This record gives sequence, C-alpha cells and structure tokens, in this order.
Amino acid sequence: MKPMVKDATGETQAARATLSEVAALAKVSVATVSKVLNGRTGVSDETRSRIETLLEERNYNRRLSAQSTAPLIDVLCYELDSPFAGAAVSGIERAAREHGIGMVVAGAEESHLPAPEWIDGVLRRQPLGVILVAALLPEKDLARLRSRAIPIVMMDPYGAPTTEAPSIGSADWNGGFLATQHLIALGHKRIAIITGPETMMASTARLSGYRAALDSAGIPLRRDYIRPGAFHRDDGVAEGRDLLSGAEPPTAIFASSDLQALGVYEAARSLGLRIPDDVSVVGYDDLPIAQWVGPPLTTVRVPLSEMAEQAMHLVTRLRDEPELAFSRVDMATSLVVRESSASPRT
Amino acid sequence: MKPMVKDATGETQAARATLSEVAALAKVSVATVSKVLNGRTGVSDETRSRIETLLEERNYNRRLSAQSTAPLIDVLCYELDSPFAGAAVSGIERAAREHGIGMVVAGAEESHLPAPEWIDGVLRRQPLGVILVAALLPEKDLARLRSRAIPIVMMDPYGAPTTEAPSIGSADWNGGFLATQHLIALGHKRIAIITGPETMMASTARLSGYRAALDSAGIPLRRDYIRPGAFHRDDGVAEGRDLLSGAEPPTAIFASSDLQALGVYEAARSLGLRIPDDVSVVGYDDLPIAQWVGPPLTTVRVPLSEMAEQAMHLVTRLRDEPELAFSRVDMATSLVVRESSASPRT
Repeated sequence: MKPMVKDATGETQAARATLSEVAALAKVSVATVSKVLNGRTGVSDETRSRIETLLEERNYNRRLSAQSTAPLIDVLCYELDSPFAGAAVSGIERAAREHGIGMVVAGAEESHLPAPEWIDGVLRRQPLGVILVAALLPEKDLARLRSRAIPIVMMDPYGAPTTEAPSIGSADWNGGFLATQHLIALGHKRIAIITGPETMMASTARLSGYRAALDSAGIPLRRDYIRPGAFHRDDGVAEGRDLLSGAEPPTAIFASSDLQALGVYEAARSLGLRIPDDVSVVGYDDLPIAQWVGPPLTTVRVPLSEMAEQAMHLVTRLRDEPELAFSRVDMATSLVVRESSASPRT
Repeated sequence: MKPMVKDATGETQAARATLSEVAALAKVSVATVSKVLNGRTGVSDETRSRIETLLEERNYNRRLSAQSTAPLIDVLCYELDSPFAGAAVSGIERAAREHGIGMVVAGAEESHLPAPEWIDGVLRRQPLGVILVAALLPEKDLARLRSRAIPIVMMDPYGAPTTEAPSIGSADWNGGFLATQHLIALGHKRIAIITGPETMMASTARLSGYRAALDSAGIPLRRDYIRPGAFHRDDGVAEGRDLLSGAEPPTAIFASSDLQALGVYEAARSLGLRIPDDVSVVGYDDLPIAQWVGPPLTTVRVPLSEMAEQAMHLVTRLRDEPELAFSRVDMATSLVVRESSASPRT
C-alpha cells in the first residue's frame, strides 16, 4: 500500500512510484523500464505495454535529472508553412531563447495530429514540456507524456475544445464584436460575414460577436449575409464574388481570417470594385501580410507573440505548479484600423 | 609524432586525436575535456581556451557515440518571422522528419549572427549538424563546431560569400534574365528594375541578368530605370511611386523580391494605375503571398523546399563524405507567370 499525499488541488492521491518500484511490479530490470521511458528499442511490445500501463497507474514521476543535455521544449504546429504558424513559432522561439531553452519544431499532419513516430523522438529528447499550436495528440501519446510528467500546453487561437491540457487562446467573441461595431460606427447597415468552420469554437464565437454587435445597433440579421468558410483565401474569392454581384450587395464584408479578406480583395478586383470606396473589408488575425496588401487591411489582431510567450511561461512552470494545469487563458484581441474600411457611399 | 593519413582531397594530414590524447596534452582529466566539448560549466576560462585550441590543432574527431538521445539538427535562421523564413524552416522540417531527425530552430539577430549563448546550447545538444539560413557565425563559433566535427551547411538563397562551409543557393543571374526576357517577349521596352542591397551577390547577379536580357534584345540600358532597394516592401512603394509618376514612366517593373513587388502594387494603387493594364510587375521569390495578392503576381521561383531538402541531405552526409565540404550547389530558378504581367498598351 502506497502512502497517500495531498496534491495541489487538495485531494489525496497515491504517492508517485519510483523507477525501481515500477520495475519490481513489472518483473523486469530497471534498465528495461528506462528503455521504455526513453522511447528506445529492444523491448517486446507486450512488455512495453505492461510497463506503460504501470507507469500511468502508479503515477511515476521522473526526477528531473541533473540535465546533461541542453534544456528543450517540443513544439508541434499545424500548417507549419502558413503565415500564421510562422508568427507563432517565431514568438515561441523568442520566448524560449529568453529562458535559455532550445526549441524543437515539428509540423502536424492534415488531421492536426503528429506523424506516428513524433512521440518517440519526444520521449528520447525528454523536453521540459510540449506546446501544441493548433495541433492535437491522440490519447495514447497524451498518456505517455503524462506518465513521464512532461507537461503539455495548447496554444490554440482557434480554441478547439480538446484534452485536459491548459491552453492559451484569444478572445474571439470580442474580436467579432469589435470588427462589426467598427463597421456600424462608420455607417454601414448591410454588413456580411464569411465565417470559419462550424466545428471550431473560434468561428462560432466570432459569428456570435458579429450578431451581438448588429443586435446592439438594432440592425436586423440577414441570413443571406452569413456565408460559410474555412479560414481560406478561396472562401473569400467565392463568397465575396457571390455577395458583391447579388441584387442587394453588402457595403461591408467582415472576413473571419486575413486570408479570407485577401480573397474578398480578389473578388472585388475581378468585379471592378474598389476598396474601401465600393466595399469595406475587415479581416481577422493581423498577420504581417495585412499591412502589406493594397489597401492595407483593417483587421482584428490576435496577439500571437504574447500568446507564445504565455505558452512558454506556462510550460516551464507546470512541473512545479501543477495547479496551473487547470488554467485556460484567453488573451485580449484588438482592432487595427487601416485603409480597407471607410464610410459607405450614400 | 602522429601517423599521417590521406584525407578526401588526397592530401595527407595528421590523424585525428582521441579524447584521452587531448587530455594528456592539456594535462587535465578526460572528464574536463569532455566538459569543454559539451559546453558545460566548471572549467576555468584559461583551461577551456587551452583545450579548445588543442581540439582544433589536433583535429579531434568525436566518435559518433551510440546516440542515447534522439538525433537533432540545429537551424539558425535570419528574420525568423518573415514569410521567407517560414517557407525555409518548414521545408527543412519536412526533410528532417523524413530522416527521423528532430529540428531545433533559433532566430539570428539583426546582424545575421546568433545570440552569444546560442553556441553553448548547440555544443550541449551535440546535433548531427548545423544549417544556417541566411545567417552567419563568428569565427570563434565556427572553430568550436569544427573542433567537434559538427558539420555546417549554409542554405543561403542570397548567396552571401562567406565561410568555408558548403552551401545551397539558387541561380540568381538566370532568375533576373528570365524575368526580364519575359517582359521583353510581351513587348515591353521601358523596363525598370528595383534591386536588392549592393553588398549581396544575389542582387548583383539579378541585376546582371536583367542587363544581359536587355542587351540580347538590343534595348539600351537606362540609368534612371535602375533603382536601389533592400528587398523590402518600402522600396517598392517609394521607387515605384517615383518611377510611375515620372515624365517617361516604365511600362513594366521588375522587383528583386516579392515584398518589393507588393510595394509597387501599393504605389500603382495610390496613383490610380491598374496592374497589368497600366503597368506590368514581376517579383522574385514566389512566396505563398505571391499567389494570394490581387492580381496574382508573376514572379521568379526560388525553390526553397528543394533547397531545404538538399541542405538537410548534405548536412547528414558530411561526416562520412568530407569531400562534400567543398560543394556549392545553385538550384535552378524558374518563372511563374500569373496575372501581373501583360503586353503594354500601344
């Protein structure tokens, strides 16, 4: 019978097992448990699985060894080649550098999950923690990280409702509200929205903010002004063209991502319409390109560098302050007014 | 007297010293040499410097230990938050993943050099190699990597003529020639260029390609059509505005980077000129944004993913095939024709 201790939430739980206790229970050598812990080969599947189960059940806690290699964090990032990922990764790198920590980066697959062999590399590297940027882990990988007391933080501006890991998001509802309120204040009444995927919390929250701003101003909601999208440029081209060539076109379009907004730019151009003279456009994200396009894009800023810094801060503190495991931080969004929004022509 | 052996270039050189030989020569313990090798603390500056010198002089070659941690490469990247870096890093990551190698990424400073503490992390991590993306290392760091037999590869699309490290570049002269030839074939005779920094080989080569294409077509060079820049968007705005509002404006502008081309878009927009109807624009790089802007940009493609793959391939082979250390690969550039270039109005 293991002694009971209080954990950070005040509940009692079994004290953490040591390596040799796990080895004794599994009836294998300490070296074998060590191999499994560090993701090495030379252990049968059956034994590996038995040891994995014990590590999890017995709440094994790897002592922080006098780290002989340089400290690392592992970052798994969705769509690593997107401008969005570029900003996130570069923010985490800056924060990691300030902490004297090296950053290992891997791209997630289309499914938002890592390549199957990713977890082996992580276990062998023994990082201080793992940051998931709009990425997900299968339950099996989560368990393997948990059993080795490697903390996980989700930096997920899209607020996907997933795992138990603490997360850093951003205020999507407020963002949607701010963007729409700005267009209303300029005098627009016919304001359309192109949304993100229905399955993402972020899309729902931005759409909800849009509706709330219209409501507050007493502007009736028009179903035909709400167009579905997936945060991609193509959405903006297709829906923008359709909206702007309709019988009663909107005078302003709120796109749920900067890339969608660029698509609306293209739609307007192909129809011979000028921005903001003929139609106002507001984007979302404030990627670097937002200020490079013509006209520079009015958009909602998602504070990616600040989020990256918070994620880095959190992941380095989780081991010592497990109560942080329950935290969910939403960082403030703000409106950046540039030249793509103006009063409608009367 | 050490025995002499032939190296890959056919020249003889001293055989490589072992750890204990270096320790004996330095009159310190093997453990102390090991500390220095792995960038750890607990060694006086004087001793450290004596050992560093011996490692270098005696051509120490670390045996690839049965790598107990997962294999890593270290990437140092200039302007990590730029779209350019995003494409490079994501390409290296894909290639590293295929090799089963983890990628550590750090951003270089404004000077293209790493933060002073970067090298310590690298030495402690003992990576398979280092890839510099448009970044530089001070001689001291180069020596420390050399003495530990950690190979360096430069992935430098800008072809900076630096260190002895092998490098992967791209065919800049051809790129400049292709872009200009394309505009000439469309019927343009008044073709301006905005260049990159004079100090960069890449700029000189692209400008030279531009001149060669004009020469071939018998079009006289006009000094006032050659404008200096630094690959930045602002160059395009300022020089574009000046060129297009002059007495005899060009009918086409060749920008030495996609960001400069976006600046020319902005200049044209602010003057009420349409692309390509009033002025054709060709960019350079083929960053993702080139296809997102309106109109989609005709540009010279720098094959960043292929370059990243080559760099990765090279860095993993250098240890076994030291003759590759003298290689300089320039990957082919190609023209991507989109909608920003058309025949001039007659």
